[in-house]
Amino acid sequence: MRRLPAALELDGLVVVLVRPRNPLNIGAAARAMSNFGARRLRLVNPYTVAFREARSAVGASDLLRKAEVSEAVAEAVADCSLVVGTTAVRNRVLQHPPRMLDDGAEAIRQELQSGRVALLFGSEKIGLTNEDLSHCHWLLTIPTRRKQISMNLGQAVAVCLYEIARAAPSETTRMEIDSATAGAAEQISVTLLEALHKSGYVKPGNDAVSEKKVRSLVLRLGLSSMDAKVLLGMVRQVVWKLRRMDPE
Amino acid sequence: MRRLPAALELDGLVVVLVRPRNPLNIGAAARAMSNFGARRLRLVNPYTVAFREARSAVGASDLLRKAEVSEAVAEAVADCSLVVGTTAVRNRVLQHPPRMLDDGAEAIRQELQSGRVALLFGSEKIGLTNEDLSHCHWLLTIPTRRKQISMNLGQAVAVCLYEIARAAPSETTRMEIDSATAGAAEQISVTLLEALHKSGYVKPGNDAVSEKKVRSLVLRLGLSSMDAKVLLGMVRQVVWKLRRMDPE
Repeated sequence: MRRLPAALELDGLVVVLVRPRNPLNIGAAARAMSNFGARRLRLVNPYTVAFREARSAVGASDLLRKAEVSEAVAEAVADCSLVVGTTAVRNRVLQHPPRMLDDGAEAIRQELQSGRVALLFGSEKIGLTNEDLSHCHWLLTIPTRRKQISMNLGQAVAVCLYEIARAAPSETTRMEIDSATAGAAEQISVTLLEALHKSGYVKPGNDAVSEKKVRSLVLRLGLSSMDAKVLLGMVRQVVWKLRRMDPE
Repeated sequence: MRRLPAALELDGLVVVLVRPRNPLNIGAAARAMSNFGARRLRLVNPYTVAFREARSAVGASDLLRKAEVSEAVAEAVADCSLVVGTTAVRNRVLQHPPRMLDDGAEAIRQELQSGRVALLFGSEKIGLTNEDLSHCHWLLTIPTRRKQISMNLGQAVAVCLYEIARAAPSETTRMEIDSATAGAAEQISVTLLEALHKSGYVKPGNDAVSEKKVRSLVLRLGLSSMDAKVLLGMVRQVVWKLRRMDPE
């Protein structure tokens, strides 16, 4: 009988439910995690009643009891070197085209060999917002019929984890690169945004849009942790100079 | 963007729920079928209240309304040329050792090209009985952690249908991204280098080393042509500001 290889215990995978509303779905996500060996569950702004009910349900797992709650996506993914958003939306104009689950799962397995990966699922009704998506390196979609693309949350979690946990079909030969964490990328975004403000690139009143744009641009760069340090140093120096010349 | 090939509309697949008790699970099974293109749902001795509730639920699909009910497994699978039972039980002595889902799904796809295939799921509590199993050509199991082999019914249906509906794994589905030319990258490097000079990041006398460092950093970013334009615009604006404040 084949078993899951040790590498597929999915220890480094963080399942992040953003604004879940249904306690049954939270429980179902936790159960699928338990089936496929994922252990870290985080919730961003869950509907309070739902979270309480899910936790107190008969048979609620240890995993669910240990789930961490945060108020912002940035906080929930800060220690992850790869942040992936799940989406059913295929026709919306997305900054990054979504990867199909099989390809995406392969990339996630690669990254799990050296770092932590966050997999984001949006709320039952509206999924992930553009703001949520701006925290993602890329998006993942489950191939479904076009007429019925929206999946139940618990089922989507189960299908994604099944695919990520499946044994790798081919040997990997890619070199290990230590990727920058989402927290490190966020530092660059914030500093770069200040430089863009001070230089007049960002017009007053455009802050929210610019913030999302800059954040997604920085994530798309796919920085190594080394390059992230260098780039942050550069941008900081530029900001320092701009501040010095144009004190507010 | 890839679509499910016509062959994967799973027209010939019959999902058979044997003695389901929970209306939510019946609804979830129907929803997963709709996601992955299966249309024929049959129930063997469902708990009557559960079936009634599932059918009358808001948003219950046409598929659920058309579900056929029978009193015996034999009747539900009579028109199928292949009957497959799903089981989580691995250590029980089974007449046939179960196939893992990926192998089994391949065999099911083969059979679907010429005949009808029944996929049986047992009740939430006890699964399929030996009597049920005796109607099956072989058994299918979803690879899970040994410590938590029992899956939620709706999630098990979703994972099985996902795997059966998957297209050949080798196709790549990532969309081609138009990469920035070396010339565009060089423009960014040159402009960034000027910003680094003016901000004091590059010390005088270090020009040659810095130039190489900056160029290889920019190349490692693997920019798309769109992102390259945006980034060049940002750096140019910063340089413009630095020049204006600190004319040489």
